Amino acid sequence: MALKLDALPGRAIIYEVGPRDGLQNESCTVATDEKVKLIESLAETGLPAIEMTSFVSPKWIPTLADGPEVARRVRRRPGVRYSALVPNRQGLDAALAAGMEEIAVFMSASETHNRRNVNKTIAQTLAAFEELVPAARAKGAAVRAYVSTVYGCPYEGEVDPKKARAIAKRLLELGCFQISLGDTVGVANPSQVERTLALMLEEIPADAIGMHFHDTRGTALANVLVGLSLGISTIDAAAGGLGGCPYAPGAAGNLATEDVVYMLDGMGIETGVDLDKLVDVSAATQRVIGREFPSKVLRATLAVRARARREASH
Amino acid sequence: MALKLDALPGRAIIYEVGPRDGLQNESCTVATDEKVKLIESLAETGLPAIEMTSFVSPKWIPTLADGPEVARRVRRRPGVRYSALVPNRQGLDAALAAGMEEIAVFMSASETHNRRNVNKTIAQTLAAFEELVPAARAKGAAVRAYVSTVYGCPYEGEVDPKKARAIAKRLLELGCFQISLGDTVGVANPSQVERTLALMLEEIPADAIGMHFHDTRGTALANVLVGLSLGISTIDAAAGGLGGCPYAPGAAGNLATEDVVYMLDGMGIETGVDLDKLVDVSAATQRVIGREFPSKVLRATLAVRARARREASH
Repeated sequence: MALKLDALPGRAIIYEVGPRDGLQNESCTVATDEKVKLIESLAETGLPAIEMTSFVSPKWIPTLADGPEVARRVRRRPGVRYSALVPNRQGLDAALAAGMEEIAVFMSASETHNRRNVNKTIAQTLAAFEELVPAARAKGAAVRAYVSTVYGCPYEGEVDPKKARAIAKRLLELGCFQISLGDTVGVANPSQVERTLALMLEEIPADAIGMHFHDTRGTALANVLVGLSLGISTIDAAAGGLGGCPYAPGAAGNLATEDVVYMLDGMGIETGVDLDKLVDVSAATQRVIGREFPSKVLRATLAVRARARREASH
Repeated sequence: MALKLDALPGRAIIYEVGPRDGLQNESCTVATDEKVKLIESLAETGLPAIEMTSFVSPKWIPTLADGPEVARRVRRRPGVRYSALVPNRQGLDAALAAGMEEIAVFMSASETHNRRNVNKTIAQTLAAFEELVPAARAKGAAVRAYVSTVYGCPYEGEVDPKKARAIAKRLLELGCFQISLGDTVGVANPSQVERTLALMLEEIPADAIGMHFHDTRGTALANVLVGLSLGISTIDAAAGGLGGCPYAPGAAGNLATEDVVYMLDGMGIETGVDLDKLVDVSAATQRVIGREFPSKVLRATLAVRARARREASH
């Protein structure tokens, strides 16, 4: 099939996952105050959607144990959607009690990854969601779903995209508004993305699909380009590239928000995000975390700014 | 216009520029022995073309002052093309005396960058090449040309692609076999690349064009994907992402060879390069240089290998 760069969407929605998916994969503990500040600063950059924390048991994600407090404390900015990760009914109740109006559920497209991650088969997970998703909807909450390992599983290798599509369709039937298709291991390439997303689009509308690429092997932006050319315009990303790859400690994980915003800006695709403000937020956050973030635009922008300061002082 | 992923070239030629463009932008001095070892190891990975050094005056590029010795000492591997950067007649004579059979000349698409880089106007540079290129050809040497700042100039900002095309056409008329179009500052985005390369292809055959993207802002692979979809299949890259960005010290420069080879492997586009061997070469080279290279595939592969070793030892 042919990809068209002249049929690109005029606008893309960046779904910021740094405060949840990013922090979850950082080894250091970040103070609740810093998390609240990060989320509020991210909203100030113009990001339209922010996943801010998780209501998964602190046993599983200790770094996000303060989820309820974060969710209660963050000052909401009008027009911004805030969501939180929810694994089960208990998490849903806690999220609703903390004022969340949007939640995200998660599962994997591969049996082994799903079992290792949530200790259930795919069928058991879907059965649980048959209660959980409608329960959330009944309380007025919007539900997004993550499907992990769509482009490859760390245990099983390649994953049949038809299996991922069947899962995605079922989640939409249950009442999810969008399925974020995850390249959890960061192995996808543009040809595979084209085949997979074309298959999805045969039975799922473009606006019900989110692209969640990890940049572990540098292909995330090329993969995003393919999705955009197919009319898919929701892109998950984490400020600075916050969070590493759980399967390759020391390697990159989430696509950096700066990198995708830079590319879309140049292509004339509106995101509403102020790139300079976003660089400020990431620069402050990497000081808190204590390591250099992988975002190339972040590094280049900070290097250019440092050079300008040196030249101005001469 | 429409981009076609189903009309991709079956084979791409990676033009390895690490030993020249990479080392030139590293601040440390590398021993001649190490350079020779690097170039010979790169040839062993299956790379088809390697730019190994420069015959520019040591005054301008002190780190490559040992060009003649490197060129004489590297054991040639059959089937691999070796080239060296040459600025003028003196450099050409030295390159030919050192046994080079392919040289590369260079200039910029923007007046200010050209003047700052070679102290000549574009017209003066082309006039000098009217003697230099035919002189090289008369001695049996193939001549490649770099045109820098095609996608943006650090001094002038945007550059008219028609001006770059006129320069490229003139260089081909003079006897160059290929023009490598450089995103010297690393600012290009896929839409700009599509417009620029489509304009080039109106008057220049695809195999006379090389893509030279810097990954300073993370867009290099997305840009390469656009070029491939237009039928252009020569890609400049540097092992590990060797060499930084001269305009943003601390930021990434050349596209990493590992990253482009990984993407092409996944897309079924042959390069002839053994990715595992290439990772070994880059891992050894970053130890010599003393800093972590930016290649994401390099980092991910080393992280995955380290994890496998840890698990094997338990």
